[in-house]
Amino acid sequence: MNIYDISRKAGVSIATVSRVLNGSDKVREATKQKVLAVMNETDYTPNVFARGMGLNSMRTIGIMCPDVSDAYTANSVYYAEQNLRAFGYDTLLICSGYELENKKKSLKLLLSKRVDAVLLISSSYIEHKTADMDYIRDAAKEVPVAVVNGYLTGDNIYCSYCDDYHATYEVTRALLDKGRRNILYLYRAYSYSGIQKMSGYKAALEERGIQPRDAYIVLVENSISRAREVLHELDKQGIVFDSVLSAEDTFAVSAVKYAKDRGLSIPGDLDIIGYNNSNLGECTEPELTSIDSRVKTITVLAVKMLMDVLSGKQTESRVCTPCNIVKRETTDF
Amino acid sequence: MNIYDISRKAGVSIATVSRVLNGSDKVREATKQKVLAVMNETDYTPNVFARGMGLNSMRTIGIMCPDVSDAYTANSVYYAEQNLRAFGYDTLLICSGYELENKKKSLKLLLSKRVDAVLLISSSYIEHKTADMDYIRDAAKEVPVAVVNGYLTGDNIYCSYCDDYHATYEVTRALLDKGRRNILYLYRAYSYSGIQKMSGYKAALEERGIQPRDAYIVLVENSISRAREVLHELDKQGIVFDSVLSAEDTFAVSAVKYAKDRGLSIPGDLDIIGYNNSNLGECTEPELTSIDSRVKTITVLAVKMLMDVLSGKQTESRVCTPCNIVKRETTDF
Repeated sequence: MNIYDISRKAGVSIATVSRVLNGSDKVREATKQKVLAVMNETDYTPNVFARGMGLNSMRTIGIMCPDVSDAYTANSVYYAEQNLRAFGYDTLLICSGYELENKKKSLKLLLSKRVDAVLLISSSYIEHKTADMDYIRDAAKEVPVAVVNGYLTGDNIYCSYCDDYHATYEVTRALLDKGRRNILYLYRAYSYSGIQKMSGYKAALEERGIQPRDAYIVLVENSISRAREVLHELDKQGIVFDSVLSAEDTFAVSAVKYAKDRGLSIPGDLDIIGYNNSNLGECTEPELTSIDSRVKTITVLAVKMLMDVLSGKQTESRVCTPCNIVKRETTDF
Repeated sequence: MNIYDISRKAGVSIATVSRVLNGSDKVREATKQKVLAVMNETDYTPNVFARGMGLNSMRTIGIMCPDVSDAYTANSVYYAEQNLRAFGYDTLLICSGYELENKKKSLKLLLSKRVDAVLLISSSYIEHKTADMDYIRDAAKEVPVAVVNGYLTGDNIYCSYCDDYHATYEVTRALLDKGRRNILYLYRAYSYSGIQKMSGYKAALEERGIQPRDAYIVLVENSISRAREVLHELDKQGIVFDSVLSAEDTFAVSAVKYAKDRGLSIPGDLDIIGYNNSNLGECTEPELTSIDSRVKTITVLAVKMLMDVLSGKQTESRVCTPCNIVKRETTDF
């Protein structure tokens, strides 16, 4: 018997059960009595939210990410740890890798440590098949789960993500306004945010009556040198492009190197746009225009959602933050 | 009464006490009896090492680093977490910042969580005043402490570091062999490894009868754009340099940009060497020669030392790993 069962049996939301457990005065008396009746009836021990209140709590949040050596992830883990500590919570860190089976094992391990809540950091936790995320929904029956940069529905699941779709939509429009027609799109993964980014690119093209072409949407492994080779290969295949929109800063670096190899001027002959506004963008010459996916803001918001739900406060279950477009030297719009 | 007191009272090393606690057969019977007698006499509860054996253990290691968003640190935390998990240990992460008072508070907090051991990741935990590290030595009276990329003596303290001194010594010699005489040295901190690096640079100069000049040893804040300005300022002050040895890859990136600004050829007019072999080195044109400080190797070794001591095995208290010099395009030696 867990909080999920209580909410179902009582016919109220998990948030309402939580508020009853926390003695909130925002619950109607009749609802409160109904919830308490179900609890009595089922001998429910309110461990999940009681933990959050410091009763029987380890005051520990489990952070799961695929790979903390990834720069974006490392930033998010940093902000999460700092914020959680400010709220008096410890951080138990686990790196799950990218394989579904290992993600499942890692989350199970975290739950076995009796963490008060789980923070998933990476859009790669959003799988293509909904059923493949049942292990996350199952976890959310035990403790609140927040996802940084992913979108997933379910009871007791909280998502903080940035609006990647509108960011690529906006820059693609700007490139079209400039007169670009052959915009190459480079990406490394069909992750949740990967798909958002690609959709924004396609939508801006379609809106202008341009059919997105498969040859211009290229999957590349995450390596500067490999992406540089790929650009030369495309060139040899006669795929002409006048701009590069990249879902990673690494590929934008490769595009700068490719332009040098070919004697192309940037942004005269080639516009280049990266993603994540990492420190790589400052290393190239010219420096990269890059989409800032707001890692600090979305992480802080995800932590706040967890803290709110653990203290029985009302909270949104999804928060979307717009990206910033950081204009430097590889574009002129 | 802790393991440190037992070892002192019995007149044996902490490792010996640990071996007695773990029933190792490598301890002479007389020594064993002496240790057990002291334990009986003082009513000692062997919590520290018993924890490592799974008796009463949380099987959790506390990782403390100043800032996990730093790329080098993020890599080290990643390898540490993966290795600890392979040994069946969880990772409790805390980011202490760089201020001594906050370091002390953070370590105290970790110990209060009853971790089995502590892993300090950063040479910045090595303070200039020995007394300022007493808080680490005090922690080591309770649990084993390992330091990644730092050198600190004390009972129950284990250090895994790379040989920064010989790395800068070697590249400085190579620059001198090439005929360079005005080698600029850029650094960002007087951390333990920072001082090692600088010493290697100075030693190679002195060996050739060249007195290191203060004007050529420049402290810079960790910013690509700021270091680029600093190089132009040095130039205006008439400080002529024919090569740049940098304790950070970021400054080497700045040096590449400075050379472009001034129309200098690399490495014809200016050799440039970075540090850490980060992905920044691949972004510049030409790509950076950089000293690889072996983050994976030294982290894995630090974890191994902790695992050995927790299981009562004999272990070195200090392990030094040589750096690799990764030669790319900004040097020609």
